[in-house]
Amino acid sequence: MKTKIAVLGASGYTGSELVRMLLRHPNAEITTLTADRRAGQEMRAVYPQFSPFTLPKLISIDEVDWAAADLVFCALPHGTTQEVIKKIFAAKASMKVVDVSADFRLTDLAAYAKWYGHPHQAVDLQKSAVYGLTEIYREKIKGAKLVANPGCYTTCAQLPLIPLLREKAIETSNIVIDAKSGMTGAGRSAKENMLFSEVSEGFHAYGVGNHRHMAELDQEFSVAAGEEVLASFTPHLMPANRGILSTIYVRGAGGTAGEVLHGILSKFYAKEHFVHVLPFGETPQSRHVRGSNMTFIGVANDRKPGRAIIVATLDNLVKGASGQAIQNMNVMLGLPESTGIDQIAMFP
Amino acid sequence: MKTKIAVLGASGYTGSELVRMLLRHPNAEITTLTADRRAGQEMRAVYPQFSPFTLPKLISIDEVDWAAADLVFCALPHGTTQEVIKKIFAAKASMKVVDVSADFRLTDLAAYAKWYGHPHQAVDLQKSAVYGLTEIYREKIKGAKLVANPGCYTTCAQLPLIPLLREKAIETSNIVIDAKSGMTGAGRSAKENMLFSEVSEGFHAYGVGNHRHMAELDQEFSVAAGEEVLASFTPHLMPANRGILSTIYVRGAGGTAGEVLHGILSKFYAKEHFVHVLPFGETPQSRHVRGSNMTFIGVANDRKPGRAIIVATLDNLVKGASGQAIQNMNVMLGLPESTGIDQIAMFP
Amino acid sequence: MKTKIAVLGASGYTGSELVRMLLRHPNAEITTLTADRRAGQEMRAVYPQFSPFTLPKLISIDEVDWAAADLVFCALPHGTTQEVIKKIFAAKASMKVVDVSADFRLTDLAAYAKWYGHPHQAVDLQKSAVYGLTEIYREKIKGAKLVANPGCYTTCAQLPLIPLLREKAIETSNIVIDAKSGMTGAGRSAKENMLFSEVSEGFHAYGVGNHRHMAELDQEFSVAAGEEVLASFTPHLMPANRGILSTIYVRGAGGTAGEVLHGILSKFYAKEHFVHVLPFGETPQSRHVRGSNMTFIGVANDRKPGRAIIVATLDNLVKGASGQAIQNMNVMLGLPESTGIDQIAMFP
Amino acid sequence: MKTKIAVLGASGYTGSELVRMLLRHPNAEITTLTADRRAGQEMRAVYPQFSPFTLPKLISIDEVDWAAADLVFCALPHGTTQEVIKKIFAAKASMKVVDVSADFRLTDLAAYAKWYGHPHQAVDLQKSAVYGLTEIYREKIKGAKLVANPGCYTTCAQLPLIPLLREKAIETSNIVIDAKSGMTGAGRSAKENMLFSEVSEGFHAYGVGNHRHMAELDQEFSVAAGEEVLASFTPHLMPANRGILSTIYVRGAGGTAGEVLHGILSKFYAKEHFVHVLPFGETPQSRHVRGSNMTFIGVANDRKPGRAIIVATLDNLVKGASGQAIQNMNVMLGLPESTGIDQIAMFP
Repeated sequence: MKTKIAVLGASGYTGSELVRMLLRHPNAEITTLTADRRAGQEMRAVYPQFSPFTLPKLISIDEVDWAAADLVFCALPHGTTQEVIKKIFAAKASMKVVDVSADFRLTDLAAYAKWYGHPHQAVDLQKSAVYGLTEIYREKIKGAKLVANPGCYTTCAQLPLIPLLREKAIETSNIVIDAKSGMTGAGRSAKENMLFSEVSEGFHAYGVGNHRHMAELDQEFSVAAGEEVLASFTPHLMPANRGILSTIYVRGAGGTAGEVLHGILSKFYAKEHFVHVLPFGETPQSRHVRGSNMTFIGVANDRKPGRAIIVATLDNLVKGASGQAIQNMNVMLGLPESTGIDQIAMFP
Repeated sequence: MKTKIAVLGASGYTGSELVRMLLRHPNAEITTLTADRRAGQEMRAVYPQFSPFTLPKLISIDEVDWAAADLVFCALPHGTTQEVIKKIFAAKASMKVVDVSADFRLTDLAAYAKWYGHPHQAVDLQKSAVYGLTEIYREKIKGAKLVANPGCYTTCAQLPLIPLLREKAIETSNIVIDAKSGMTGAGRSAKENMLFSEVSEGFHAYGVGNHRHMAELDQEFSVAAGEEVLASFTPHLMPANRGILSTIYVRGAGGTAGEVLHGILSKFYAKEHFVHVLPFGETPQSRHVRGSNMTFIGVANDRKPGRAIIVATLDNLVKGASGQAIQNMNVMLGLPESTGIDQIAMFP
Repeated sequence: MKTKIAVLGASGYTGSELVRMLLRHPNAEITTLTADRRAGQEMRAVYPQFSPFTLPKLISIDEVDWAAADLVFCALPHGTTQEVIKKIFAAKASMKVVDVSADFRLTDLAAYAKWYGHPHQAVDLQKSAVYGLTEIYREKIKGAKLVANPGCYTTCAQLPLIPLLREKAIETSNIVIDAKSGMTGAGRSAKENMLFSEVSEGFHAYGVGNHRHMAELDQEFSVAAGEEVLASFTPHLMPANRGILSTIYVRGAGGTAGEVLHGILSKFYAKEHFVHVLPFGETPQSRHVRGSNMTFIGVANDRKPGRAIIVATLDNLVKGASGQAIQNMNVMLGLPESTGIDQIAMFP
Repeated sequence: MKTKIAVLGASGYTGSELVRMLLRHPNAEITTLTADRRAGQEMRAVYPQFSPFTLPKLISIDEVDWAAADLVFCALPHGTTQEVIKKIFAAKASMKVVDVSADFRLTDLAAYAKWYGHPHQAVDLQKSAVYGLTEIYREKIKGAKLVANPGCYTTCAQLPLIPLLREKAIETSNIVIDAKSGMTGAGRSAKENMLFSEVSEGFHAYGVGNHRHMAELDQEFSVAAGEEVLASFTPHLMPANRGILSTIYVRGAGGTAGEVLHGILSKFYAKEHFVHVLPFGETPQSRHVRGSNMTFIGVANDRKPGRAIIVATLDNLVKGASGQAIQNMNVMLGLPESTGIDQIAMFP
């Protein structure tokens, strides 16, 4: 029997990616799609690629019959998400929820209030939420009712760094993360600075010195290292649809060479389906993971002794959002982890 | 038991697309990959996206053990293909071959000699070849040993026009096909005029007035119409990787309106898995079929009475090449036609 | 002494292009910049490329001191333009105005009402307006007080076709114009369907069968031919910032060959600075006119006897809008026509 | 009287950029264009944008009459350049040469041999060469006969960092330069990894840990700091034609804040025409300098106390190559420095 799935926020890019993959997932049946501003329309009016397929009509969240769903993917803007998920559990206590927003990622409610500008509205729920970086928290996710899917930037920085921080293999005071994201990471909102002519044929940094994703990085890096870690992090937008590529500059603890860091990562991810460590000295391209749930990681020595450069890449809409969300669903449902998300990268 | 597959020319884009889809095809096993200039290398050295997967090493065609393969996809340059396929059947008469090149598409050997500049080298084989436009020649493909997979431009023009020509619904003397292709249609050869900086941020026509794909169009249009048809056809290159979009200007025979043309196409393709006719008046975007085996067709009336505009689009590497090749394989093997190629378009 | 220039609508792309070129125009001084929604801001806040330069602060139209300007470029949305220009002439009868909008292009007020959905609001002014296709109407522009700068699509179709229609060298019933435009042609408004991720990596037609630019084409083609001409015209959006490329399919009148058409165009534009006819058989690329005021035109024979294919290209923001506007200003002011707009195309 | 200019290597992108700007330079006359593989062809065959202009035919270097030229721009591959320039001075001792290649940039011949794999072939000339970072070495350039134009990556890192190193305002052991370049930086050679389909829609680092441009950085940083400086530097390729954007992570010496660094840069470049420092906290976009000779620099504080992030950007073909080359020519000839290169950035 298939799990009945509701996708909230189906008109956004993470929503459409969920639909793309769930339509081909052997154990899932999409029974509910919401999109408040597009309620009443067919999904094909919002995303013509779904024209040939039968899908439920878009409805508003108020219209959802929660009893009819087994699992909810919540792809709503942060802020409103807290209220909605509270209502979901109030309506159906046995629901499973994977939240793609930032609302339940921070365990420190003071940090939440600082970065998001208002107190958290669902404190008890927050306590029960599990951070959904699958390769790191798989065991906790198995029993979770509410999974807080990590952000795209953070997944791409945490996967390469957490094993190194756990092993105390790098200096914690000297981490620089220079991250580049495709435009879909900014969502589907109609803003002047996201128009084709504003962002093609060029490059820029944004949120320099101060970006919300840092809160998530701080939290998980500090947990992994067992001490407070504050990394330098600069996000950039690149003129491409998909992909995050992070170039990470580290100093090996006590002179540890890049080869050692590479060994730690290779061992840590040896059996993982969705994290692939390239041979030492090779670094990955974002296009080679496009459309797949893979993360590719490369490690090389800097010419400066004692320094290494790590390059990690993933598709921000897949492993950075909807793919990892389904990976978490698979874990929560006891399915093989790659079910429905083992599509191979589409290059070129 | 899985069909053992050899892919000849695995280092090109049609080759890599075959590998991408065959790796997830439940009835196929890739046992041989050739790439003459890259022989001896791993596939991952040529296409890093395959790094996580186990694939046979690239070998030269001379090294292939034909007895070990059940079916061959031939993705070689035209010209050499004829010789290779002759050798394959000489080595194993029971082989099934899907040829992605242009070598066996033209039944008129004089036309072949005219457009390709030399006489055909495998005349007998040519006679047994079946033109692989699946929706049109499905019955013949079932029993074929050698399928000549159509070109990308031609598939995108033939699917919308053949049903109309068969029904004599449009004037045959007045067809204009303005076709736009993504850059992967030009292959993976290192030519100055295909560099990023030469083709991004702009647009151009090429082969104006005279292009090899016309021979294929002439052949199939004339068969469908029962009279000689010569269409105007201009190919263009667009700054995108994938996609062909054809804007086709026709005059309805005896004043036939666009609605009638739309009705013919809707009926003809009503049960097809991979051809989707949009509601009358809507026209498709190439990005909404990207990565899928779908063809989308739209029909609208021109403001000039008696004229209609048809827009068709497909992914040149999938329905325009490797996807249709696997679709043909499925037909040849008696498998459900969409096996392994029902991936949904990836947008954005 | 420099001519004092007001640019109305400086926050749009045609506005910023005017500023870019006028800043280097030896006979122009920008004294007024308006942008209603950005009034009070510096131009550098809207277009950071102007950061190093001294420019007047953006103000609202109501704040403009018309007496202080000699010439106005009006780059406002159609509709409001009529009211604004009426007020300008009421305030200063001796003003010279170049209007980049569509408001004064149509001499037939019924056609205006039909295509724009409301009666024209400045009927008397309309009668005095001169259509600003410089190479065709240069003499009239010299004495004009109000020039209606042509649209980008129409300039790119009229320049190649008007000389042929005047000479009755092509059949008027059989013209197909397949036009492709860069995204800047759609302006700077924040709409979902203009986001980078919606328009990159793909292609689509829009306004199929029915597009406002047709009214302008009809008017000028009919004038040139001396009979009513209705061309088929389909606009497309390409994933590039700048450039229009029109592929035009014609039938020579009485079997006239492409060489003859090419001869007519070559002769007609032999002394023009901004229209360049390529050798017969060559067709142009949009990128080779990027950023310049040039139009490149190529002519080739179709393989179908009696048919020819014409390809024309220009930069939609320069010759298709702001460049031609300054060209018209130069004509109105009696300056050498290429003053300030002879920048060479930037490729790559 | 105009200076007679020879451009060697006119078929490359730096060559065509030189031609684009020199054609509009009031004091320059292009009398010689070379391109060995294209010798005998017209420039328009290699770069159609020059079709409307009169230019000398391309010849091979052996055919050049050196006596007829006053100044040579040498845009040849490194290695061959040394031999050619030796011959030029042998033929005409009074020649002025601006070399765009890397051949004369390194004063330490051992460093040259290490990074380029062979001993320098023109040791005496090397001693007389002046490093052409105009804003830093203007006085020396005035009297130079041979100027070694800096690389694009290095210009974009040296301009923001040299003033800070001179003032000892940043720690020299802790500089990380994450640089992103447009594809034209890789030149016009037909290589598979530079094809549109290989580099569009994605991002990657290359030369990680070890890149030739580092030698130039080391040399000039060490001179500026008065001690050996080794920065971490990683180049990346972005899917855009033009632009370099460098994100630079520094630690203020003794806790110096970003505001102080910003103050040093603002003062240093206050009177410069081509270097613009944005208000503190703002960072630039590469597209806002496109096509211009400008460098934009922004400085912001990192959230980590004592750390700052500097973002610098320029057009790699203009200030990063041909524009700065002409800027140096202007200095050598005693012309106003911005003559012929004051074109404003073209955005969008």
